[in-house]
Amino acid sequence: MDIATLIGLAGSLGLVIVTIFMGGNAAGFVDVPSIVVVIGGTFAVTFVMFPLGVVIGTIKVGLKTLLFKSNDPLETVNLVVQLADTARKESLVALEKVTIEDNFLKKGVMLVVDGSSEALVRSVMEIELEFMKQRHRQGQAVFKGMGTMAPAFGMIGTLIGLVNMLSNLSDPASIGPAMAVALLTTFYGAVVANCMFLPLATKLEVRSDEDALFMQLMIEGVSSLQKGDHPSVVKEKLQAFLPPSMREDT
Amino acid sequence: MDIATLIGLAGSLGLVIVTIFMGGNAAGFVDVPSIVVVIGGTFAVTFVMFPLGVVIGTIKVGLKTLLFKSNDPLETVNLVVQLADTARKESLVALEKVTIEDNFLKKGVMLVVDGSSEALVRSVMEIELEFMKQRHRQGQAVFKGMGTMAPAFGMIGTLIGLVNMLSNLSDPASIGPAMAVALLTTFYGAVVANCMFLPLATKLEVRSDEDALFMQLMIEGVSSLQKGDHPSVVKEKLQAFLPPSMREDT
Amino acid sequence: MDIATLIGLAGSLGLVIVTIFMGGNAAGFVDVPSIVVVIGGTFAVTFVMFPLGVVIGTIKVGLKTLLFKSNDPLETVNLVVQLADTARKESLVALEKVTIEDNFLKKGVMLVVDGSSEALVRSVMEIELEFMKQRHRQGQAVFKGMGTMAPAFGMIGTLIGLVNMLSNLSDPASIGPAMAVALLTTFYGAVVANCMFLPLATKLEVRSDEDALFMQLMIEGVSSLQKGDHPSVVKEKLQAFLPPSMREDT
Amino acid sequence: MDIATLIGLAGSLGLVIVTIFMGGNAAGFVDVPSIVVVIGGTFAVTFVMFPLGVVIGTIKVGLKTLLFKSNDPLETVNLVVQLADTARKESLVALEKVTIEDNFLKKGVMLVVDGSSEALVRSVMEIELEFMKQRHRQGQAVFKGMGTMAPAFGMIGTLIGLVNMLSNLSDPASIGPAMAVALLTTFYGAVVANCMFLPLATKLEVRSDEDALFMQLMIEGVSSLQKGDHPSVVKEKLQAFLPPSMREDT
Amino acid sequence: MDIATLIGLAGSLGLVIVTIFMGGNAAGFVDVPSIVVVIGGTFAVTFVMFPLGVVIGTIKVGLKTLLFKSNDPLETVNLVVQLADTARKESLVALEKVTIEDNFLKKGVMLVVDGSSEALVRSVMEIELEFMKQRHRQGQAVFKGMGTMAPAFGMIGTLIGLVNMLSNLSDPASIGPAMAVALLTTFYGAVVANCMFLPLATKLEVRSDEDALFMQLMIEGVSSLQKGDHPSVVKEKLQAFLPPSMREDT
Repeated sequence: MDIATLIGLAGSLGLVIVTIFMGGNAAGFVDVPSIVVVIGGTFAVTFVMFPLGVVIGTIKVGLKTLLFKSNDPLETVNLVVQLADTARKESLVALEKVTIEDNFLKKGVMLVVDGSSEALVRSVMEIELEFMKQRHRQGQAVFKGMGTMAPAFGMIGTLIGLVNMLSNLSDPASIGPAMAVALLTTFYGAVVANCMFLPLATKLEVRSDEDALFMQLMIEGVSSLQKGDHPSVVKEKLQAFLPPSMREDT
Repeated sequence: MDIATLIGLAGSLGLVIVTIFMGGNAAGFVDVPSIVVVIGGTFAVTFVMFPLGVVIGTIKVGLKTLLFKSNDPLETVNLVVQLADTARKESLVALEKVTIEDNFLKKGVMLVVDGSSEALVRSVMEIELEFMKQRHRQGQAVFKGMGTMAPAFGMIGTLIGLVNMLSNLSDPASIGPAMAVALLTTFYGAVVANCMFLPLATKLEVRSDEDALFMQLMIEGVSSLQKGDHPSVVKEKLQAFLPPSMREDT
Repeated sequence: MDIATLIGLAGSLGLVIVTIFMGGNAAGFVDVPSIVVVIGGTFAVTFVMFPLGVVIGTIKVGLKTLLFKSNDPLETVNLVVQLADTARKESLVALEKVTIEDNFLKKGVMLVVDGSSEALVRSVMEIELEFMKQRHRQGQAVFKGMGTMAPAFGMIGTLIGLVNMLSNLSDPASIGPAMAVALLTTFYGAVVANCMFLPLATKLEVRSDEDALFMQLMIEGVSSLQKGDHPSVVKEKLQAFLPPSMREDT
Repeated sequence: MDIATLIGLAGSLGLVIVTIFMGGNAAGFVDVPSIVVVIGGTFAVTFVMFPLGVVIGTIKVGLKTLLFKSNDPLETVNLVVQLADTARKESLVALEKVTIEDNFLKKGVMLVVDGSSEALVRSVMEIELEFMKQRHRQGQAVFKGMGTMAPAFGMIGTLIGLVNMLSNLSDPASIGPAMAVALLTTFYGAVVANCMFLPLATKLEVRSDEDALFMQLMIEGVSSLQKGDHPSVVKEKLQAFLPPSMREDT
Repeated sequence: MDIATLIGLAGSLGLVIVTIFMGGNAAGFVDVPSIVVVIGGTFAVTFVMFPLGVVIGTIKVGLKTLLFKSNDPLETVNLVVQLADTARKESLVALEKVTIEDNFLKKGVMLVVDGSSEALVRSVMEIELEFMKQRHRQGQAVFKGMGTMAPAFGMIGTLIGLVNMLSNLSDPASIGPAMAVALLTTFYGAVVANCMFLPLATKLEVRSDEDALFMQLMIEGVSSLQKGDHPSVVKEKLQAFLPPSMREDT
């Protein structure tokens, strides 16, 4: 599990809350109508921006992507090299019996075993990679959209509060507190955008790049299997996908 | 019909209106000249930015795109697989008799039946895809343009109000209400931009991507028909366009 | 003539002026030094940003592009189809006698008649298309640059006014009017940027896309002429460039 | 020399200075510590952003690019056509004796005369074009970076001034002047960014595009020479690089 | 070592500190809770945005890239020319004995010596180049992310301070100092973003471009070695990668 995300979320929100408590006026920071207009408005407008299925899908993809770590690229390189070895020593058909956990790699290997043309295998795998990227891009778009709309609704809320306050300046004592409440929506919008929506969009992007890298590595690997490359060539080729620190000396 | 868009629009505007009523000064939020300068100015400037035909076309495309759901990609995959089956069992000419509802797919199949070259079929279909994207991009550009101009006219209105107020500070009691009115244009601009124009532009973009995906799927399908691919190969190829959850096991 | 642009310009500026007059203090919105620093500064800095020739060219291209409507694409499709018909029934050389008003299409047809290689014809026409786009992009860059600099000079003017006002707070009665004048430059900058420069840049972009489409249609048409495509194939190909509503049934 | 740039710089800065003098408080706009923190901070941070060599190179490239006009493209077209004529009438080797002032064109012609392969000539010239672009992009990046950092340091200076002023509100008479001084850094940042750094970055970009166009024209010309194209074909090809108004009728 | 970066960092931060001391209220600029919420919040949110490994990797890559200068491209050109000479006079195998310090170039040469196909050598080297770029892009993303989040947390801190101050206006004497403290978080956010995170992100980008250039030069060089190009051709080709001032006359 990716604990860093949770710790980061807790840490940034926690620091904001501690700072509020240190001001000695924590109750003044809770205003239910302000929370409703910022959070409710953001979610309502998200359903205008994105189809229902995409929003729900985002939450699913998001949770999965955020909570679990990516696989180990080194392991995958070794697995593909081993497959190349088996294919060379026995035959391509022998790959059918090897257990492959990753569905994407498995599908590619099965297509090769079935004797599909190289163009078909590559095209099927690349379309799948393209779609994975597109689903993740949609997820990022949802989080970024919410990260843009939350401050916008914060500002709308503050404008409402300011207009109300300015229309009624008769009681000077109420001006300060009224303006404090008006600023709360801006505050809520800034906090949920910068502590949650925008950083989560960034992490989704990073994870998506990692997954895409993985899938590209697998596409190259399957292509090498099909060409019957020597395992040492496969290794040479795929190790270029690893950061230098992860490479084994040959 | 895409009810989510309507519910989202109603929800976000509704929350803003409820928040206004909770302030107990709802009448203070209606100022006809302010509404005229923001909404009128935004529309006037939209006609400077875009030709009349594009603006009207946007409203049409927009309504159609926003209110109706896209087709079911799975159905289309199945239809193309079935066409491939017919073409294989009978002949390409037999496709002429199959009823195809989608105009784009129908046109492609008809070109194939007429014996057009593969290059011509693909080029005609891809140019059409390109134009669909361009029309949608124009629609998004119109909505985004309005979403940028509404806050700009809001600010212009507020500046006019501020200059008027500052030029005449003799009556202190009028300062607050005058400034409240000045802020209203900023408020109107923020509301129409963030509750309507900008989220609608985003949804148009999402829908456009979905439609483009559909058309790419159909182009690949027609190309497979023309090449005489086996129906199972067609299925394999086109299923890569579906999200994993939608795929049938083969 | 493209009246929509003029009506839009008049409408947006008119609404601003009407709003000013409704405030009952119209004279307070005219301050010659403020106008000079915003407009003069914007133009001066435009000559730092762009060579003299480009700025003058922009005004020419701008006026021409903004005031006149594009041609009718349907007419062009029909003309090219008719040319293909003539070329087929008579000969390529017979095209020499056909009157073609558009210079770009004429040049392409003449190159074909002269027996130039297909690669040369396409390369000459595509370079010309590229250059038309580049000239229009420069024009947009000039308008966008002015649309960015006008608010910047507005802000600089307001800062000068604020510093002057704050240095001399001895007469409280003068604070309001002084600040009103200080805000005027921000107001002028916002008006000229949002009512004129930025929307004109957008329209130039839209028109440029339309012209590019036209030229692409002509390049495809000339290429078809040279290949000796059958008129019905030419029609099929070029109709894909038209929006669905404009297409004739075949 | 490109006088327009100098006149534009003088004009925009001049208007700002005249506006200051018209306020009757010109001395209040000079505050040495404010100037030091904005200008000094901007330059210091530029050395964090870019290597020393790039910053110095930018000043050199900048001055050269800003002060001198580009060559005349028509002249270059004519020169290349003349070279094609010489090559045709005499021989490629005869080009060795022609005096070519432009180093880039000269290098390309020399490579052709030396009998280098077409691929090598094109690759050497295109790499050189690519590097010219990259050096100019770096120069623009430096100016844009300074244009972003100057307002940032202006804001930092103003924040320092505001904190100082707010910490010490005991003497009401000093509030105004203190805030005026605080605003000066924002003013300086806005002026140097918008009157100098940002417009110079734009001009560098325009000039770079012009130079790239020139070099592309020369690459096409040298390629034509090598292919032995007829001078009239060379002319036809290269004239497409000129704006319509510059073309000679053939 | 790249002293310019350190001097620039020291200079910009130093100027800010000197400006603070000149205000005579330096103690008023230190507020530990404000520092904690801005710096702590920025780091916490960075761990939401990026995986732990990437953040740590960024610090490593960052320090290495920022503190050390790039190699001399001229030296590399000469080394490759010398290798071409050796390969021509002796044989490709003779390259095995030459000492090559750069790991990337060494790997490419070793692949050539081992008799790998040209496609494999180029693909392995280009994948490695691509990955170097991607690691650097991640590093820049981390610094840019921190440069965006620091001002955001500064604003959140200021909003908390303002709400606290406005809720309690009973003691007018405390308003000024309370607002001064509220502004401090905005100040801290602006300083760390503009003096540190953002300029470091820019330098990382510049360094990354330099390194990529180096590696492209080496890829072209190794490709020339493999093709058996004459050393003078190799020199001609690779010198195009150098800025004109660095080239030797041939």
